Amino acid sequence: MSTEVKGLNEECGVFGVWGSPDAAQLTYFGLHALQHRGQEGAGITANDQGTLKSERGLGLLADVFRDPRRLDRLTGTAAVGHVRYATAGNHGVENIQPLEFNFSDAQFALAHNGNLTNAVSLRRELEQAGAIFHASSDSEILMHLIRRSKAPTLDEQVKDALNQVQGGFAYLLITNDRLFAALDPNGFRPLVVGQLPTGGYVVCSETCALDAVGATFIQDVHPGELLTIDDQGLKIDHYTTDTQLAICSMEFIYFARPDSDIYGVNVHSARKRMGARLAQEQPVEADIVVGVPNSSLSAATGYAEASGLPYEMGLIKNQYSSRTFIQPTQALREQGVRMKLSAVKGVVAGKRVVLIDDSIVRGTTSRRIVKLLKDAGAKSVHLRIASPPLRYPCFYGIDIQTTRELIAANQTIPEMCQSFGADSLGFLSEAGVIESVGLKVEAPYGGLCMAYFNGDYPTPLYDYQVEYDEEIRQLQLHK
Amino acid sequence: MSTEVKGLNEECGVFGVWGSPDAAQLTYFGLHALQHRGQEGAGITANDQGTLKSERGLGLLADVFRDPRRLDRLTGTAAVGHVRYATAGNHGVENIQPLEFNFSDAQFALAHNGNLTNAVSLRRELEQAGAIFHASSDSEILMHLIRRSKAPTLDEQVKDALNQVQGGFAYLLITNDRLFAALDPNGFRPLVVGQLPTGGYVVCSETCALDAVGATFIQDVHPGELLTIDDQGLKIDHYTTDTQLAICSMEFIYFARPDSDIYGVNVHSARKRMGARLAQEQPVEADIVVGVPNSSLSAATGYAEASGLPYEMGLIKNQYSSRTFIQPTQALREQGVRMKLSAVKGVVAGKRVVLIDDSIVRGTTSRRIVKLLKDAGAKSVHLRIASPPLRYPCFYGIDIQTTRELIAANQTIPEMCQSFGADSLGFLSEAGVIESVGLKVEAPYGGLCMAYFNGDYPTPLYDYQVEYDEEIRQLQLHK
Amino acid sequence: MSTEVKGLNEECGVFGVWGSPDAAQLTYFGLHALQHRGQEGAGITANDQGTLKSERGLGLLADVFRDPRRLDRLTGTAAVGHVRYATAGNHGVENIQPLEFNFSDAQFALAHNGNLTNAVSLRRELEQAGAIFHASSDSEILMHLIRRSKAPTLDEQVKDALNQVQGGFAYLLITNDRLFAALDPNGFRPLVVGQLPTGGYVVCSETCALDAVGATFIQDVHPGELLTIDDQGLKIDHYTTDTQLAICSMEFIYFARPDSDIYGVNVHSARKRMGARLAQEQPVEADIVVGVPNSSLSAATGYAEASGLPYEMGLIKNQYSSRTFIQPTQALREQGVRMKLSAVKGVVAGKRVVLIDDSIVRGTTSRRIVKLLKDAGAKSVHLRIASPPLRYPCFYGIDIQTTRELIAANQTIPEMCQSFGADSLGFLSEAGVIESVGLKVEAPYGGLCMAYFNGDYPTPLYDYQVEYDEEIRQLQLHK
Amino acid sequence: MSTEVKGLNEECGVFGVWGSPDAAQLTYFGLHALQHRGQEGAGITANDQGTLKSERGLGLLADVFRDPRRLDRLTGTAAVGHVRYATAGNHGVENIQPLEFNFSDAQFALAHNGNLTNAVSLRRELEQAGAIFHASSDSEILMHLIRRSKAPTLDEQVKDALNQVQGGFAYLLITNDRLFAALDPNGFRPLVVGQLPTGGYVVCSETCALDAVGATFIQDVHPGELLTIDDQGLKIDHYTTDTQLAICSMEFIYFARPDSDIYGVNVHSARKRMGARLAQEQPVEADIVVGVPNSSLSAATGYAEASGLPYEMGLIKNQYSSRTFIQPTQALREQGVRMKLSAVKGVVAGKRVVLIDDSIVRGTTSRRIVKLLKDAGAKSVHLRIASPPLRYPCFYGIDIQTTRELIAANQTIPEMCQSFGADSLGFLSEAGVIESVGLKVEAPYGGLCMAYFNGDYPTPLYDYQVEYDEEIRQLQLHK
Repeated sequence: MSTEVKGLNEECGVFGVWGSPDAAQLTYFGLHALQHRGQEGAGITANDQGTLKSERGLGLLADVFRDPRRLDRLTGTAAVGHVRYATAGNHGVENIQPLEFNFSDAQFALAHNGNLTNAVSLRRELEQAGAIFHASSDSEILMHLIRRSKAPTLDEQVKDALNQVQGGFAYLLITNDRLFAALDPNGFRPLVVGQLPTGGYVVCSETCALDAVGATFIQDVHPGELLTIDDQGLKIDHYTTDTQLAICSMEFIYFARPDSDIYGVNVHSARKRMGARLAQEQPVEADIVVGVPNSSLSAATGYAEASGLPYEMGLIKNQYSSRTFIQPTQALREQGVRMKLSAVKGVVAGKRVVLIDDSIVRGTTSRRIVKLLKDAGAKSVHLRIASPPLRYPCFYGIDIQTTRELIAANQTIPEMCQSFGADSLGFLSEAGVIESVGLKVEAPYGGLCMAYFNGDYPTPLYDYQVEYDEEIRQLQLHK
Repeated sequence: MSTEVKGLNEECGVFGVWGSPDAAQLTYFGLHALQHRGQEGAGITANDQGTLKSERGLGLLADVFRDPRRLDRLTGTAAVGHVRYATAGNHGVENIQPLEFNFSDAQFALAHNGNLTNAVSLRRELEQAGAIFHASSDSEILMHLIRRSKAPTLDEQVKDALNQVQGGFAYLLITNDRLFAALDPNGFRPLVVGQLPTGGYVVCSETCALDAVGATFIQDVHPGELLTIDDQGLKIDHYTTDTQLAICSMEFIYFARPDSDIYGVNVHSARKRMGARLAQEQPVEADIVVGVPNSSLSAATGYAEASGLPYEMGLIKNQYSSRTFIQPTQALREQGVRMKLSAVKGVVAGKRVVLIDDSIVRGTTSRRIVKLLKDAGAKSVHLRIASPPLRYPCFYGIDIQTTRELIAANQTIPEMCQSFGADSLGFLSEAGVIESVGLKVEAPYGGLCMAYFNGDYPTPLYDYQVEYDEEIRQLQLHK
Repeated sequence: MSTEVKGLNEECGVFGVWGSPDAAQLTYFGLHALQHRGQEGAGITANDQGTLKSERGLGLLADVFRDPRRLDRLTGTAAVGHVRYATAGNHGVENIQPLEFNFSDAQFALAHNGNLTNAVSLRRELEQAGAIFHASSDSEILMHLIRRSKAPTLDEQVKDALNQVQGGFAYLLITNDRLFAALDPNGFRPLVVGQLPTGGYVVCSETCALDAVGATFIQDVHPGELLTIDDQGLKIDHYTTDTQLAICSMEFIYFARPDSDIYGVNVHSARKRMGARLAQEQPVEADIVVGVPNSSLSAATGYAEASGLPYEMGLIKNQYSSRTFIQPTQALREQGVRMKLSAVKGVVAGKRVVLIDDSIVRGTTSRRIVKLLKDAGAKSVHLRIASPPLRYPCFYGIDIQTTRELIAANQTIPEMCQSFGADSLGFLSEAGVIESVGLKVEAPYGGLCMAYFNGDYPTPLYDYQVEYDEEIRQLQLHK
Repeated sequence: MSTEVKGLNEECGVFGVWGSPDAAQLTYFGLHALQHRGQEGAGITANDQGTLKSERGLGLLADVFRDPRRLDRLTGTAAVGHVRYATAGNHGVENIQPLEFNFSDAQFALAHNGNLTNAVSLRRELEQAGAIFHASSDSEILMHLIRRSKAPTLDEQVKDALNQVQGGFAYLLITNDRLFAALDPNGFRPLVVGQLPTGGYVVCSETCALDAVGATFIQDVHPGELLTIDDQGLKIDHYTTDTQLAICSMEFIYFARPDSDIYGVNVHSARKRMGARLAQEQPVEADIVVGVPNSSLSAATGYAEASGLPYEMGLIKNQYSSRTFIQPTQALREQGVRMKLSAVKGVVAGKRVVLIDDSIVRGTTSRRIVKLLKDAGAKSVHLRIASPPLRYPCFYGIDIQTTRELIAANQTIPEMCQSFGADSLGFLSEAGVIESVGLKVEAPYGGLCMAYFNGDYPTPLYDYQVEYDEEIRQLQLHK
């Protein structure tokens, strides 16, 4: 069981709205814009005159709500929704959010993006005090803390509970009469608030979801803030002032949608600047620049512009889902059968290619793509990564593989280059990331969490410390 | 009924394989690579030691074969498959191909990409002679002609039949002991043949499907050719020598996948050249170049390079399917709710944008995108189209709207520009298309069919002549 | 292929209505009442102001129309429907009826219950004349014959075609402006016509479907009759007068629903009389009478009343569908795991049981039920069959196993008794069947077809003669 | 919310097995035999070497497990399963059992059949102590009580918890190393234990499920007993000795399957005796006896035998599911369209019919069936009910409508007779029920709970007392 509790690193998307006659519809469209943050499950809870009703299911949002009656049932003027990315062994329907809690005197529904670093301890304590957990995720913990708080009002109970959880979290909590939104003291996850043309309020993971529903951006939710939205309007408060911005750099590098803005910085533009900086830091003589679709296209155009090399569509991603039970067998794969990516022979044949990828995790994809390009006739493939080597695990909500699976934690850059079959390999520097993002804040690492690259975690690791120490020790042993 | 027969303009994809133990699997992967040619239905017929078995269904390939037992049932060493784009009113399961024909002494399955111009006459004649048609499409006609031919051998019967049909067609016909592939005398539709590393042969609509299954390109099937593949190998013959290449220019402009090569020309590269040429023909002072994703990205990078303007990701396409019953209501759409395309505010705000689209049909999308960019703060939007105005219908297999629905058949360029809310509008010239594609053939219009732009059809229109004349007359009246 | 064509013995249900605003709805409810006649597929074709539209699918009616929009699409005031029982290897969706035929100048949809004895010859002749068959069933043949007829009017063409087909058939044929219904010259299959309270007409396989839609019975359709229903009303005509009633005795014994009347005879009452007669012909000393649910309950109560023994519910059928992929393995079956039938220990333990079944085909069920009762503690089991031994195949539309699979064609009664593990075994006599049914007609065997019992077929066997002779020869050899 | 908590009256089926390599398979087959006890949802939890895994879903068992991989995933040698009947507003997937509970140090899964009378109080107390409930059903309460118990061992904690819940309950609780089964002190719900031929143990709601899996009956679980099954075998203990048998009389009258035995009494035989007794108590001159299929057939044969009247199949139930969205409209229903029950005209026309039903709840079905028979020509219809009038609600697990909806609580017998359109109406006496069942126990009402008939509840009503008093007061007012 302990591995289940520990492995709950997840990347998710949340969306909440208060004060619109189309609340569930808007939540559906907002979640559709956030689908890139989680594809394993989706759910919506609506508040209809104080009563909560939910619909949830495994799979993509469009699959969960294929039967339009599911959405029709979610009448009401407020709602919260969630799209979920689930790690292996953790994909039961009981983990799909929003989690609904029915009390004799109240109802709550909770949507959570992030990961708690003291979940195991809190859960153990709570269980010893008689608490019962249904889901294997750590998202229920907050609800238990709220209910056990001795504070006199619900607002105080929520603050009390928020001060007990550690790690990365963006919470939306809908009750019979209000919607709470809270962000952890480091602001690891993005969260923004906006206003509908009709007057209601929206809180969601990224600005692209505000745009999707026609809402106007008000502000990023800041570390330590607690927002309350009810029929009186929006109240911005905080549950702690002991905060320090350390937003996940991988949001800028890979996760967030290019059209989103985070703390005023457009994600596509940041990526393009990273690509341009990469061209300066890691130049190479070549004929064309090719990006790995779709996530690396911004960085690739930045590299191309800065280097003066032409940007070419040397790789094509099949836009049709290959989510099916039918996959090429190993024999067919060796014979060259492919479902997702194709190299454009007419573009790469005979060319020296600069291949831009946003990041490298286990390295298997890089190896495959280099081979694809060489099979298509590329004369040479120079792999350039628009971020530093990933060497340390994340404990704040990204499902980065354990250290042992991170290729950069185990191999030197020349070793990796050889293993990928590339002709050269270069990474962007940490400074390159920080300056390309360019947040206008006074904070270590320019307000970014860079721990995956340098091991400098902005908070204590709590329950993960022992495990982390052991991993690092193992890693040293194997070197 | 007559409208049903007439309206059968369809764009489809075909794939056939002979001589592989994984025939149906390969056909699945090949069709997956051709899914962009048709999303309304899919089917595969396998030949297992002389016996044909089929699986067919409505929807995407992955939906039709979601139950893996459907593919497992298709044992055998040869197969043909089809993905289908269906026009309204014509989406019954009986129209999904391959069409299977069971005789007491033989079985056939037919996959067809194209449109016959003498279908109505042939069908009427055949029905008067007692023929019965099941599907409403014109694809059955060939089978009737084959069975009624008095020629002594099946090969002669097939040639006899092919000489009676007019228009655009790429046929795959599998029998108990061989696979036929045939292309019309103008080669309107692309069709290529390749060889598997294990020795079998593949015939399919585009080279991207050869790549997807690891097959080596042998040649484009030429106008008037009839290929026969059986256990003895590949035989390339012809049923007529009265041919003249006029391949559909829209394949280069819009339909084909960028990684496919047609007559030795890579589609992405042709599009990029069209974009570059467009920059020369229709220059404009601006800050950034933005392409409409995904089909116009090649042309947009060509425009950017040639103009020296930066290419930016100013529009984002949601990569997750919005194929669902849940669509924004009109009220929500007006409020700004969007599911497919978003403008990247951080990129376009305050900028003079050159917006590149590959073509304009009815103009509704152009209007919406210009508005999207202006709402996102674009200072001006200069629309540039990487093809000439579409003014005439296609009778050879593309479902171009009737003339009355083509905005360029009804409005002048300034009228269109105003109607779109664009700051300027320019189209690529016909010469621009022809020279950018640059086929190395001696033929009118460089071997392309340009009739949608100039009304110069490479063949008589047969059954469509009367209707065409009437449409043109109406159009004149309304001007 | 020839085996496919030959094996098309099917039992189906048909329903047609003309002149009701709820035509498709009524057809749905009528087919629901006829679902016992076929569970493998269902379809409805509606006529909306002269245009035909169809919905069809594999599985039970409720599964095919689970999405209510499928029925909603079938607007119009007339419709025909079909439920289908398919034999192995013949379950493609292309065989599901009504079969729709689209001509340039007309549409037809055909629903067929029965089996043609000259299908192979007709099909071969038609194919030689250029005809193309899509489905593997013989139902398309009639349409080809109609279209090839040289008769001047459609009515005459239909009569012409009906005079060419041999065997058992009840056809419903809907066109753009009328509904035809025709029965073969022996009336092998039941077919009745009734009138709706609102004035429209209904033609269907059994009176239970008239009752299900609130229609009043008008008459049984007689052998050789051709009914035409259009906006002018009902016209009863005939295409031949060379007729001789020989209705399938198995309809009374097993197929038809107990609440249906056939030629004025209620099916339940006929079965009860057969049970009573069986008690006279095959008496036995015992404690209780038990029927095999559900089909033998009528006969069992007849036996109980006539014998004076109490009728007991000694066997229970699980009313919930076990239509699932999950079946007990052989090991589990041996351990006693059962899904369908259970013996009621409290009823049968220590008792001498008379077990009533309606008929015996292969004998496997009988063996299993006798064992079930003995395992539950029955002191003895006396098996009594309310029909004579099935020894000959049917060629008119019932899927009776081939002679070699009929246990009574291969074993004597004592051999069967031993093989079933029963303490005694007795069958009803032919005279018992004929007199219990008691049709008031002057015809051989009281107007029943008794060929399955005595080999005396009321018509020549045409294409089946050779095969039949060979089977009989084989059977003699093995005796 | 309070109505949700209150309305949780449910009738369910439970099945547990310990010590079989086919545990989940057997649970599937066992639940299939118990499907009549609940059709709204089903679930199975398997124990694979100490780890619990679950599969659950809405709908029939066969629907939930249509994908055979769901069952394949449930490896292990022990399992519990549940089929659920849900009341309106309470059909969320979170209420489907077994409920799974994941602790850091243990896993539990709970299946519950029954209803607690102090659920509201317990839940309120538990919530005040910080407990969080997910489902709206009261089944979670036991788990909370166990975890909060201060007793030193799990066994003691379970006993402690069982002594705090009041009402009707049959619990199965599977843990990492054992299976508990417990029955309430009145034994309101049936629960039996048996042994597999291979040695494992089975606990389930009815003996029919033992038979379905080939298990041998050991004993009925008695009131107040707590069974523990683990790898050491079966231990029968008790958590209280303050017990008094009061098994739900409706199990004998309607719920249980006829082939089940409860406390040694076969259900079919008990029903037949009730029918015979009814014939003595409520005789009538008539021609035939007809039962409402399927539940009243046992009673009807009993009536027929005792009265000497012939038992006839005057009503037919369509054996094919009408579980579909397509239902006759009101207009069609008035026109006579029917989906479920048909009268057999040939049987009832001109006859004086004794119609036997097992019980009357709201009376709407009775009214419809009497009309059906009269429309089919019955000369008269004498309705005889094989149980006393239902006048009081059940608080122990049956979803009997509230008192106001029970027709017998509101009308006299003559009023009901007139309202049904029947020619006479008679009910079985309470003594008739008690003596026909004939349990061999010394207890009030022969060991049966007869409260629905006489308001004499065997326990205090706890949380329901106030509501009950109010309902009775209202009822008096309206009389």
